[in-house]
Amino acid sequence: MKSYYIGDGDGLDALKLIDRPEPAAAPGRVVVRMCAFSLNYRDVEIANGRYGAGQSPRHLVPLSDGVGEVVAIGDGVTRLAVGDRVTGSFMQEWIDGAFEASVHQSALGGSIDGVFAEYVSFPDYGLVQVPGYLTDEEAATLTCAAVTAWNALFVAGNVKPGQTIVIQGTGGVSIFALQFAKLAGLRTIVTSGSDEKLARAAALGADIGINYRANPDWDEEVIQLTHGLGAEIVVDIGGEDTLARSINAARGLGYIPVIGYVSGKSFAAPLMPLFLKNLNIRGISVGSRRMFEQMNETLALHELRPVVDRVFEFGEARAALEYLESGKHFGKVVIRA
Amino acid sequence: MKSYYIGDGDGLDALKLIDRPEPAAAPGRVVVRMCAFSLNYRDVEIANGRYGAGQSPRHLVPLSDGVGEVVAIGDGVTRLAVGDRVTGSFMQEWIDGAFEASVHQSALGGSIDGVFAEYVSFPDYGLVQVPGYLTDEEAATLTCAAVTAWNALFVAGNVKPGQTIVIQGTGGVSIFALQFAKLAGLRTIVTSGSDEKLARAAALGADIGINYRANPDWDEEVIQLTHGLGAEIVVDIGGEDTLARSINAARGLGYIPVIGYVSGKSFAAPLMPLFLKNLNIRGISVGSRRMFEQMNETLALHELRPVVDRVFEFGEARAALEYLESGKHFGKVVIRA
Amino acid sequence: MKSYYIGDGDGLDALKLIDRPEPAAAPGRVVVRMCAFSLNYRDVEIANGRYGAGQSPRHLVPLSDGVGEVVAIGDGVTRLAVGDRVTGSFMQEWIDGAFEASVHQSALGGSIDGVFAEYVSFPDYGLVQVPGYLTDEEAATLTCAAVTAWNALFVAGNVKPGQTIVIQGTGGVSIFALQFAKLAGLRTIVTSGSDEKLARAAALGADIGINYRANPDWDEEVIQLTHGLGAEIVVDIGGEDTLARSINAARGLGYIPVIGYVSGKSFAAPLMPLFLKNLNIRGISVGSRRMFEQMNETLALHELRPVVDRVFEFGEARAALEYLESGKHFGKVVIRA
Amino acid sequence: MKSYYIGDGDGLDALKLIDRPEPAAAPGRVVVRMCAFSLNYRDVEIANGRYGAGQSPRHLVPLSDGVGEVVAIGDGVTRLAVGDRVTGSFMQEWIDGAFEASVHQSALGGSIDGVFAEYVSFPDYGLVQVPGYLTDEEAATLTCAAVTAWNALFVAGNVKPGQTIVIQGTGGVSIFALQFAKLAGLRTIVTSGSDEKLARAAALGADIGINYRANPDWDEEVIQLTHGLGAEIVVDIGGEDTLARSINAARGLGYIPVIGYVSGKSFAAPLMPLFLKNLNIRGISVGSRRMFEQMNETLALHELRPVVDRVFEFGEARAALEYLESGKHFGKVVIRA
Repeated sequence: MKSYYIGDGDGLDALKLIDRPEPAAAPGRVVVRMCAFSLNYRDVEIANGRYGAGQSPRHLVPLSDGVGEVVAIGDGVTRLAVGDRVTGSFMQEWIDGAFEASVHQSALGGSIDGVFAEYVSFPDYGLVQVPGYLTDEEAATLTCAAVTAWNALFVAGNVKPGQTIVIQGTGGVSIFALQFAKLAGLRTIVTSGSDEKLARAAALGADIGINYRANPDWDEEVIQLTHGLGAEIVVDIGGEDTLARSINAARGLGYIPVIGYVSGKSFAAPLMPLFLKNLNIRGISVGSRRMFEQMNETLALHELRPVVDRVFEFGEARAALEYLESGKHFGKVVIRA
Repeated sequence: MKSYYIGDGDGLDALKLIDRPEPAAAPGRVVVRMCAFSLNYRDVEIANGRYGAGQSPRHLVPLSDGVGEVVAIGDGVTRLAVGDRVTGSFMQEWIDGAFEASVHQSALGGSIDGVFAEYVSFPDYGLVQVPGYLTDEEAATLTCAAVTAWNALFVAGNVKPGQTIVIQGTGGVSIFALQFAKLAGLRTIVTSGSDEKLARAAALGADIGINYRANPDWDEEVIQLTHGLGAEIVVDIGGEDTLARSINAARGLGYIPVIGYVSGKSFAAPLMPLFLKNLNIRGISVGSRRMFEQMNETLALHELRPVVDRVFEFGEARAALEYLESGKHFGKVVIRA
Repeated sequence: MKSYYIGDGDGLDALKLIDRPEPAAAPGRVVVRMCAFSLNYRDVEIANGRYGAGQSPRHLVPLSDGVGEVVAIGDGVTRLAVGDRVTGSFMQEWIDGAFEASVHQSALGGSIDGVFAEYVSFPDYGLVQVPGYLTDEEAATLTCAAVTAWNALFVAGNVKPGQTIVIQGTGGVSIFALQFAKLAGLRTIVTSGSDEKLARAAALGADIGINYRANPDWDEEVIQLTHGLGAEIVVDIGGEDTLARSINAARGLGYIPVIGYVSGKSFAAPLMPLFLKNLNIRGISVGSRRMFEQMNETLALHELRPVVDRVFEFGEARAALEYLESGKHFGKVVIRA
Repeated sequence: MKSYYIGDGDGLDALKLIDRPEPAAAPGRVVVRMCAFSLNYRDVEIANGRYGAGQSPRHLVPLSDGVGEVVAIGDGVTRLAVGDRVTGSFMQEWIDGAFEASVHQSALGGSIDGVFAEYVSFPDYGLVQVPGYLTDEEAATLTCAAVTAWNALFVAGNVKPGQTIVIQGTGGVSIFALQFAKLAGLRTIVTSGSDEKLARAAALGADIGINYRANPDWDEEVIQLTHGLGAEIVVDIGGEDTLARSINAARGLGYIPVIGYVSGKSFAAPLMPLFLKNLNIRGISVGSRRMFEQMNETLALHELRPVVDRVFEFGEARAALEYLESGKHFGKVVIRA
């Protein structure tokens, strides 16, 4: 079978399409024929060999996100049956309960082989059933970005109807955060450098759009829009360049989930407003399988449609990664198997 | 009557002892004859004209912390009576309920006149009764440091028996945090640059001391002491120089209350561990009057004794501030009226 | 001016329309010319002299719910101005923060005079501004029922999108609970004894209706509708006759806010399922002024329209109370001033 | 090997000592040679054939609580090794995360065979390591009563230092609740019908004892002891006869974990105080394996000693059960293997 693989080489040259033996159904494991994949910014970094603080992961199959159909099950598997449509859970070992850092050792496409192949073997507990109303392309978008947004808003966070949430940008996590915030009755402010993207966000229900190119002091605009108080929630995606403004835009007791680092991997900010406003800065690292399952029930209830920006063919992995890196996308970038 | 005042002048020369008219009991207000005061690092900064990001407060009476006896009450006052021993609440307008940033406009000795005078007039709702078992010197230590530690552990935070807490240093907030953590059944690790201070912390019940001069990698030692997991709580006092290590020392889902900035007013840290460990960084800005009252009930139940390091006379304000700034203290520095 | 009053007499004969002097604007107080009122089940009980366990309140002005316009303000009032449209907060002294039982001593129309008069004097802190988009009749419905539902779902409770909530009946609190649950993305099941009312609930967005006359085992139907698990939230309105079924209908860790007692004032239920399912039964006693204000912001954001079932004239108090008692209403019963 | 078994027969005659084959180490399973057991009130009910609402469990090995040494491990077992000292987790399938009612199907000695035998086979995930400082007799007491108290106070509940907790009686759960509450800095009030037991509770640190035979209105005494406010936490053990008084003794927003039903299996109470005081009544059903592990770390930190009232020999099961049923015990009743 065909599989992508991060081998040696500079930048995206390390990404190769290779032939590997098709996996067999070992005891407790499930073989899935993959139908569609989606990309996250992390995949761009891993493919380019620049993920994390130390040695970037390599010599592994990339991607965390993919959907497929169960084609074989090993001995002892009862959670799933042949024919089920499934997607992997980001950290295979984080089933439920409190997070422990050790679960990162089971992160798909980072610590262990990912899903970017024709067939993938998962432990049966590492998979989640896909709601029937979703297309394969839509279902492929959920594993990382949607679960991250869900965790940020409803598990790590505790957002309430009527609160104001600022969402930075219109990438995968941001658009899920927008959709989830609308679902939960919040007031949504989206920032973007593109009026065209802001118009698309408004079509998805964003109450207010701020173009941060037209108005780099978007944080001050948020303060004005909230009667001088600031927003209860500011979803920080940018990292290095945005955190100080996120802190400024937040209301007293405000909650700042930090879920991206598009602009840089370290952060620096003044301490005084963090104190004086009693702010909560919270790192978000995707979520557990149980969070994924609860999210799926909610998606199905509302028949919420993930926003698929563009679909590439299996052979176009490099083009797809470059497209994501360009930042031109709105929502999720998908690859068909 | 005599009152200290932050006037004009360089550094501590701005601090003057002046004569002012004794306050009368206006409607809804209470006049208190002050008996003792205590100092916080904020007072050093304000006295030196370097507090905050903008213009440091001046032309006001300094200090937030002081205890005294009610000597007169205005019309309509029913909460308190002449003879009551009381202390002010840090933000006079934060009675109960959720924090709003606007309450900082009522911060004693920062936004409004403080307590460093022979007589002080408070609104009746801005005072708290002092537990009878405390001396005046002990009671004078509570307003800022003790309430901050209480809020960090039990209101903003939610510490549980058996958790490991790392407490940086042995200043006022840190020693209260140590005492409160012991009271609540936690395992306590204290860091200090002085073995003598660590010995005093141990005498107060610290389970483990780490000398950060002997071992600058105190965060790695915390990880070893916690079976590679890190501590559930790291109380960050240092700010600029310590936050990156606090992040490293924290366990997955760890809680990092940020309550000081001894080493600098901005912070910089790598973003990846914040994500990967799902950490909570939380600014703490003292607390409400209700928190103060609940803390006092708990202090009284356990007859917990605040640690008074040294007591200065009323005329020795400058020496007291310089002593606090030197960092030689352990616990609280008090001034007698 | 005219004012209703609970005097002596049997049943509703105790309710009298009397003449009283128009209130003047005392210091710290606000005089409101009332425009509209709404009724709660508690008002029926008080008017009939059968509220509570001991002596039912009497010799006071009834009703907690009413909206009006500020016509005069006393000395020292700054929160409000003449011309503001306002409504009272149920427990005048519960401004913010944690509940204490003592605040019941300030409950409008129960512990102190209520609002059922042409002019009413309130302390300035006991009033809430009304969102401009609401009619007077709509605004009159909020004080008790809407704040109770808000507290049950979003303050005492912590409901999440995608959860299943069972709402008993279609009275005032129930319909607000339905509207709020929809706003927050929940799946809603409404029970009623009337198919016509269920149809109206469906028009408001109820996902599922159960007629408990057609199917007295509505709890078993809830279990079936939730794949055998039960509902995460069951809003108990009936009290005596419904709590055992509410317990049965609830999922493990389920939350049962108890906010009514239409069927009786004591409850009896088997203990085993309470244990075995780790259930939370929670009494809800309206809410604080701050909850009211946060609810109002949310109402305004969504321009949510309270459901006014029927509007009576000022002189028709008795007919209005009898109509509410009959249980024929759907949503709120309003009286025009 | 010898094993107890609940067979047919009236009352305790159903409890038989039989011979069964010693279990072998199946894949994923662990064989434990049992050293000590402890009894819970549930065991008395099961042994007497009167547990639960429907058919009481029978034809199974009784008891949930027992400690032993691993003597064999099956294929694939890595969590444990031969020689480890372990105890079972009450609901074998509740590892971590949110409770679901289905985990009761794995309750030791109720839904599945319990531990009252010379050798017991557990799935490897169903066991917990025992802290080394505990004797076997002490370690045998933890599975049900200690984890229940832990969950009630620190997981389902969120008790804080300085709060007042009322603990009913001096049985197993109650004494653990007392010890845990002391550890966490609470003020403890213990009720008992025996002055001698109250003296023993005082020796364990109970701040106040109330003899409910001398003063059946113990709830009123609690109110007096709390300045008319009531207690923040009332641990209800009695069930039918005590809940109404527990509700009366609780403070506004009070928390009433319901963890026993010594006096009867249904409850009845007035609804009004439940509303008016915004009370939380919470069923507690033991806890997860993770709670057990976190509790054990805390026990070890404090070297807390469970209170073993009396130790019976293996052959004295009937006498031990009758002793527990008599209510003469204080703390836990243990049986040696």
